[in-house]
Amino acid sequence: MNKQITLALLAVSLGVMSATPAWAQAKSKAKDPGPLVLKSQGSFFVGGEKKTITQPGFGGGAPTTGDITVNQMYVQYQIPPDGDRHAPIVMVHGCCLSSKTWETTPDGRIGWSEYFVRKKRSVYLADQVSRARSGFDATTFADVKAGRVPPAQLPNIINATHQVAWSVFRFGPTFGTPFPDQQFPVEALDEFSKQVIPDLNALLPNPSPTWTNMAALAVRLRGAVLMGHSESGFFPEQAALIAPDGIRGMISIEMPCPTLTADQIAKLAKIPTLVMFGDHLNDMPAGGIANWATSFDSCNAYVAAVNKAGGDAEMMHLPALGIKGNSHMLMQDRNSDQLADLVIAWIDKHVEKSAKR
Amino acid sequence: MNKQITLALLAVSLGVMSATPAWAQAKSKAKDPGPLVLKSQGSFFVGGEKKTITQPGFGGGAPTTGDITVNQMYVQYQIPPDGDRHAPIVMVHGCCLSSKTWETTPDGRIGWSEYFVRKKRSVYLADQVSRARSGFDATTFADVKAGRVPPAQLPNIINATHQVAWSVFRFGPTFGTPFPDQQFPVEALDEFSKQVIPDLNALLPNPSPTWTNMAALAVRLRGAVLMGHSESGFFPEQAALIAPDGIRGMISIEMPCPTLTADQIAKLAKIPTLVMFGDHLNDMPAGGIANWATSFDSCNAYVAAVNKAGGDAEMMHLPALGIKGNSHMLMQDRNSDQLADLVIAWIDKHVEKSAKR
Repeated sequence: MNKQITLALLAVSLGVMSATPAWAQAKSKAKDPGPLVLKSQGSFFVGGEKKTITQPGFGGGAPTTGDITVNQMYVQYQIPPDGDRHAPIVMVHGCCLSSKTWETTPDGRIGWSEYFVRKKRSVYLADQVSRARSGFDATTFADVKAGRVPPAQLPNIINATHQVAWSVFRFGPTFGTPFPDQQFPVEALDEFSKQVIPDLNALLPNPSPTWTNMAALAVRLRGAVLMGHSESGFFPEQAALIAPDGIRGMISIEMPCPTLTADQIAKLAKIPTLVMFGDHLNDMPAGGIANWATSFDSCNAYVAAVNKAGGDAEMMHLPALGIKGNSHMLMQDRNSDQLADLVIAWIDKHVEKSAKR
Repeated sequence: MNKQITLALLAVSLGVMSATPAWAQAKSKAKDPGPLVLKSQGSFFVGGEKKTITQPGFGGGAPTTGDITVNQMYVQYQIPPDGDRHAPIVMVHGCCLSSKTWETTPDGRIGWSEYFVRKKRSVYLADQVSRARSGFDATTFADVKAGRVPPAQLPNIINATHQVAWSVFRFGPTFGTPFPDQQFPVEALDEFSKQVIPDLNALLPNPSPTWTNMAALAVRLRGAVLMGHSESGFFPEQAALIAPDGIRGMISIEMPCPTLTADQIAKLAKIPTLVMFGDHLNDMPAGGIANWATSFDSCNAYVAAVNKAGGDAEMMHLPALGIKGNSHMLMQDRNSDQLADLVIAWIDKHVEKSAKR
């Protein structure tokens, strides 16, 4: 291969080769937290069902009929020594993202997943059904390609652009201009942009298999705290409405909260609930895709309704605690350790010390 | 929601609720290997480039133009204490799969990734570009849905059915009938089927960004052994032909080997190479999708050509070592630990003790 092309391709892959990327600089400055000791780790699937399909044979041969598995949910876990002394936590990412959400931050710091494990919590990361390692049901794409189904029936795939992400995630008032107190490591925006991937949730049935699988996982773990973010922020509650067994707590981060029936509120009020919001909810220009002020109001109303029904729900609005500058991606913000400590303290007080199951 | 539907959905998610699944039985029988101690772990991306797209506005608004990132490769790693005393190993999965390939086996045993780390090797797992957590370029799907591009231009997505996988992976001569000495844990076939996901490699440019990213990762790690399997079996060599810098060894598992030019062979002969094949290569009925006998022959020819050019290439044909019954998914077979030990011994002898870089 032409040497110029080779070097160009390598340069593309390595990014800016002459400068140390932001994540590497951050890593070298962070003090070494010491070794990570695990009792066990691994991965498995929840859910999944067989679907029979007919497709062209390989290499264009005669059509063949066979079975595929769809609606499965990939889960990766780590258990620290004595992890069974605490409620395990299931973390589910949002739109256009994967379990990377909870891993090493874009600027190279330990993410929530490892932080919680170092704080002696068992952590289970789930790729939503139809996302990342959970795969997706590609049947319709084949049908459209073959002309069996019109193109308009292709599911709407969300491709969140850098500009849309900047706005929805409240990195700053305009693209490229961060809020002065912005906690998100915007210098690592290029690295962050690489974890934004197509979102195929539009092809899922209702109820979403992710909700059902989350409920089943809580049962399989003999009790777990379910955590959702953004698109999945209210998934713990949706899972609890399907089957509350084993759901010991619900943590809902940055999303609109729906208006529910009294019956639904009564069911959800049985499970301790934490709702979290960051900063600058009123500071984005009008006309953006997300209306964070409205979302915040809807969740305050939800928290109030749950408490009025005898539940234990808390709204943790970070600026109200004096913690400024948090973005929508608060688990990746510079103060992510401090926020994780707040969540763990809430779990200790409301889930673990509480007699409620 | 109707209680019957709820219970049915839960049952689907939990699988067979009344029987202990195969993976749980295996787990309880395996002896406890003790805690896993890590010096560090994390995830990051290699490669990725900006692409400008125009798409309908959210909620059907006026079209907007913005940038997305494509061709990035997600990498997850674990480094044991003193991991820097050994060459790190980059493991890349094959068709229709993800890095799950190297993780907990379908029947619940420790996979190669953790096994190699317990043997003091740093392990980097890469989701191929366009797969799993690396995302994929969904632009064409949006163009077809909008009618801008004809449906025939949709990429051909590979949906490997249970029946095709059984045949290609040589689980047995006919679907549901395993070879008597089959090492693959076929009782866990349902769990295995959940890790088989759509393969969108057809939408990638040539050269594949995965090859370029693998080469860049070897440089970033200041030297690594690259390991590929099946569809990615020859990716280490493709990466080395792009840029050999930092590629300290190449491990190619179960694939057809191409015929190369003398110049290409001379380049590859500079890097120690291990080629691995399992059992029953001649035992599948004619007319199947994969012709393992032909693949095996092609790789014997490749190994011979590399050695003739002064290289250090070895064909490890497991039955020739008296190890019988291995499938195409040999890293998940029941004797996966024994096979991992063979690979590690090869690395120690050919990569680490060798002065060649």
